[in-house]
Amino acid sequence: MNSPRQVYRLSEIVRRFGGELLGNADVCITQVATLETAGPGQISFYANSRYRKQLEQTRADAVILGADSSASTRRPRIVCKDPYAYFARVSALLNPPLAVAPGTHPLAVVHPTARVAASACIGPFVAIGAGAEVGEGSLVEASCALGDNVRIGSDCRLYSGVSVYHDCVVGDRVILHSGVIIGADGFGLAWESGRWHKIPQIGRVLLGDDVEIGANTTIDRGALDDTVIEEGVKLDNQIQIGHNCRIGAHTAIAGCVGVAGSTRIGRYCRIGGSAMIGGHLEIADNVEISGATGVSKSILKAGTYTAVFPVSLHRDWLRNASHIRHLDVLAGRLRDLEARLAELEGKKNE
Amino acid sequence: MNSPRQVYRLSEIVRRFGGELLGNADVCITQVATLETAGPGQISFYANSRYRKQLEQTRADAVILGADSSASTRRPRIVCKDPYAYFARVSALLNPPLAVAPGTHPLAVVHPTARVAASACIGPFVAIGAGAEVGEGSLVEASCALGDNVRIGSDCRLYSGVSVYHDCVVGDRVILHSGVIIGADGFGLAWESGRWHKIPQIGRVLLGDDVEIGANTTIDRGALDDTVIEEGVKLDNQIQIGHNCRIGAHTAIAGCVGVAGSTRIGRYCRIGGSAMIGGHLEIADNVEISGATGVSKSILKAGTYTAVFPVSLHRDWLRNASHIRHLDVLAGRLRDLEARLAELEGKKNE
Amino acid sequence: MNSPRQVYRLSEIVRRFGGELLGNADVCITQVATLETAGPGQISFYANSRYRKQLEQTRADAVILGADSSASTRRPRIVCKDPYAYFARVSALLNPPLAVAPGTHPLAVVHPTARVAASACIGPFVAIGAGAEVGEGSLVEASCALGDNVRIGSDCRLYSGVSVYHDCVVGDRVILHSGVIIGADGFGLAWESGRWHKIPQIGRVLLGDDVEIGANTTIDRGALDDTVIEEGVKLDNQIQIGHNCRIGAHTAIAGCVGVAGSTRIGRYCRIGGSAMIGGHLEIADNVEISGATGVSKSILKAGTYTAVFPVSLHRDWLRNASHIRHLDVLAGRLRDLEARLAELEGKKNE
Repeated sequence: MNSPRQVYRLSEIVRRFGGELLGNADVCITQVATLETAGPGQISFYANSRYRKQLEQTRADAVILGADSSASTRRPRIVCKDPYAYFARVSALLNPPLAVAPGTHPLAVVHPTARVAASACIGPFVAIGAGAEVGEGSLVEASCALGDNVRIGSDCRLYSGVSVYHDCVVGDRVILHSGVIIGADGFGLAWESGRWHKIPQIGRVLLGDDVEIGANTTIDRGALDDTVIEEGVKLDNQIQIGHNCRIGAHTAIAGCVGVAGSTRIGRYCRIGGSAMIGGHLEIADNVEISGATGVSKSILKAGTYTAVFPVSLHRDWLRNASHIRHLDVLAGRLRDLEARLAELEGKKNE
Repeated sequence: MNSPRQVYRLSEIVRRFGGELLGNADVCITQVATLETAGPGQISFYANSRYRKQLEQTRADAVILGADSSASTRRPRIVCKDPYAYFARVSALLNPPLAVAPGTHPLAVVHPTARVAASACIGPFVAIGAGAEVGEGSLVEASCALGDNVRIGSDCRLYSGVSVYHDCVVGDRVILHSGVIIGADGFGLAWESGRWHKIPQIGRVLLGDDVEIGANTTIDRGALDDTVIEEGVKLDNQIQIGHNCRIGAHTAIAGCVGVAGSTRIGRYCRIGGSAMIGGHLEIADNVEISGATGVSKSILKAGTYTAVFPVSLHRDWLRNASHIRHLDVLAGRLRDLEARLAELEGKKNE
Repeated sequence: MNSPRQVYRLSEIVRRFGGELLGNADVCITQVATLETAGPGQISFYANSRYRKQLEQTRADAVILGADSSASTRRPRIVCKDPYAYFARVSALLNPPLAVAPGTHPLAVVHPTARVAASACIGPFVAIGAGAEVGEGSLVEASCALGDNVRIGSDCRLYSGVSVYHDCVVGDRVILHSGVIIGADGFGLAWESGRWHKIPQIGRVLLGDDVEIGANTTIDRGALDDTVIEEGVKLDNQIQIGHNCRIGAHTAIAGCVGVAGSTRIGRYCRIGGSAMIGGHLEIADNVEISGATGVSKSILKAGTYTAVFPVSLHRDWLRNASHIRHLDVLAGRLRDLEARLAELEGKKNE
């Protein structure tokens, strides 16, 4: 953050990313910020009518917005179709990933048979096992552990304290945040003679290109076949993916979600925080699941699905919750009433 | 635990913390214990009528209790208003944090521009980045990683395996348990051209004084502004706090809770285990949320809120659960019955 | 995975584990696989009629199955009572744990008063505190931290990045996966004078023999007494066990479950993923709790218990969910209808 920043004129930004420029094209931009906090040298964006007041009052040196709101401010502005996506690109331009300084720290332990690319950076206290590989431009921060035969692609970033178990494969441009555990044993047990017997977990985890995985998320290795996370999947923090799961390309899963073993989730799905997906299920492409929703059956059609108990004051909840356990009795009484009323109505009409 | 213990006479304890002493004031106390397991040299407390029998049978050398139960035992005792809080103070007196042995372990890697206070202790395999600071009396245990420009206040304790990403700020007397990740990237993505684009997370995490954070809890850095945990907040294990959240002072959150991004939780709140709080919400001061409750709307008034499906035998659940998905049909049938019955009653009275 | 494999003839397997052998007894087996993917040298199993088609088409060199399906394939096969348990034993035979190479890595830091068995293996960047013990044949991988006086039994396996706090005790043949935290402070706080006061957590964690604990699972030390995980308990990933809990022998708990403090769970229980068990509860032996179920009362009788809101399309959920908050009103209207109808029926019969 303290490094000297690259400066871009507004005109240069429009030349790169398109859009219509209104106002002073020579404004110099060094950073992005919210409408509320932006000041000199900063560019903000407006994508939600909730923030109209902040748009009107912003002190940002420039704003990214849609055509329908371009008259709401007189500040220099870029008018475009999708202000949020445009902002994402501008922010990525202004905040490039830190350059990786090639080399292996003298306090890393790299097995002689491992292959670390010349342009990769291996931090202190990193352990890399036999036959493992780290690709060009990849950064492996302090205290990561890569097991035997692990393959890390190029331009990856493993933050401090990541563990990748033996034989797992990580694609290119993958980001693993601190505390991520890839390839621990799945929960495979057989019950016999009054105790659980461990079933060796001999599959791997395969992570596709451009996957990002949040802090303390865990992905178990397959029991027999592999657990597969396809390209472009984005997983937030503290997610648990069970053995043999397959998560389809470009699916995004928010924090604290659990996916039990052998479930297949389609492509382009969006799963809200703290949702729970049971085991051996199939979730179709383009399914959206609301936060805190438990899914115990397959979902074979695209759409948005929800299962959340509505929140209320505790005393109201107490009054209502007991009825839920007797809804079938209530429904029976209703049926009974309908029959009796129909009979009365019949007599009436005789 | 094996270190020689400090001994306090009961009279000394009362002199420090107040309360009325009944029985032998010279009893020597070295440790706290439960009513059930306490023995010689140990002091226990009684704060819940569920444990009356254990109070009567306790072999504790002294008991802390309220005025209304002071006659229930003849053991030496301290009578006070709030026995649990009194006990907390006695236990803190008897179990002071271990002294920190100043110095940096030769197998730590501290950047030359980092400033570590002379009285701080840096354990083996710790990595400290450029421009980082560790304050007086702070302990950083094995395998912690502090990024560039991280500031750790004084008298903090970071247990083994904590990661604090670059630029984050930790106040004084903060406790971070093992596996805590502070400042990983928030889940910021923009969808464009069939794939997710990462939005750089340029905010920080700010932790106030006297914050304690449990094992494997994660707090994401802000997208643009900072994620803020105010003073005195207590977070249990395995909690996920999304980017841009603000948690008000002295709020306590139990284990496994997820708080999605940009949500503001007030001061003095209490949130039960495994609750889920959606994103962009506002939770007022003094709100209590029950365990396992999902919150998807703002809560603007103090009070206790609950949303828990009541547990029942699986076969009963099967009978009832299906009705929940058709409650509007059931309500419609009820309305219909009411109309028909009213008509019948009308005719009756004709 | 790349190490040369042990080969077993089918006849040898049957000699070890029993069962009836049909077909060529000299087939050489080197690995297990699913019916779908198995090929030469591989043995598979059939235990679920869902996979009958795959059984008929399998190219496995041998199959383990039950008597009633032994005619469904002509491949060499072992007929036995419980094909899944039999398969577990065959897989364990074919995939023995890697041999542990005795010795302590020069980049480990072992306190001079710690005792590490001669046959144990201590990896790089491991920190072992004063008075700690590691038993015969145990493996402690990179970046693990064992606090003062920790005891690790024999033939244990601690994967990279495990933290065990001071004084905790781990039995024999225990497996702790990466990121497991044993013995962090429980969430013990007393409220006084407008702020939380920490209650020292002076109990320990005791893990029995043959316990396995999944990645990033956390088990808090007791507040006064110990937290106890009895022998043969199997915990999946990202589970949180609060202070003073006791988990009975041979209980299995799936991923993302939270158990609040002081709860006692019986023996032989099975708890589904993302379930939440409140604090100070008692769960009997042989209780099964469904995934995503919140338990806020004790369960004193064996059986299967569930509390899951059934999932539906979001628009249907919207229609139905509001009624849940007014079920008592609905039940009142039903009672009213019943009374009025009974009166009408009475008049009818007059």
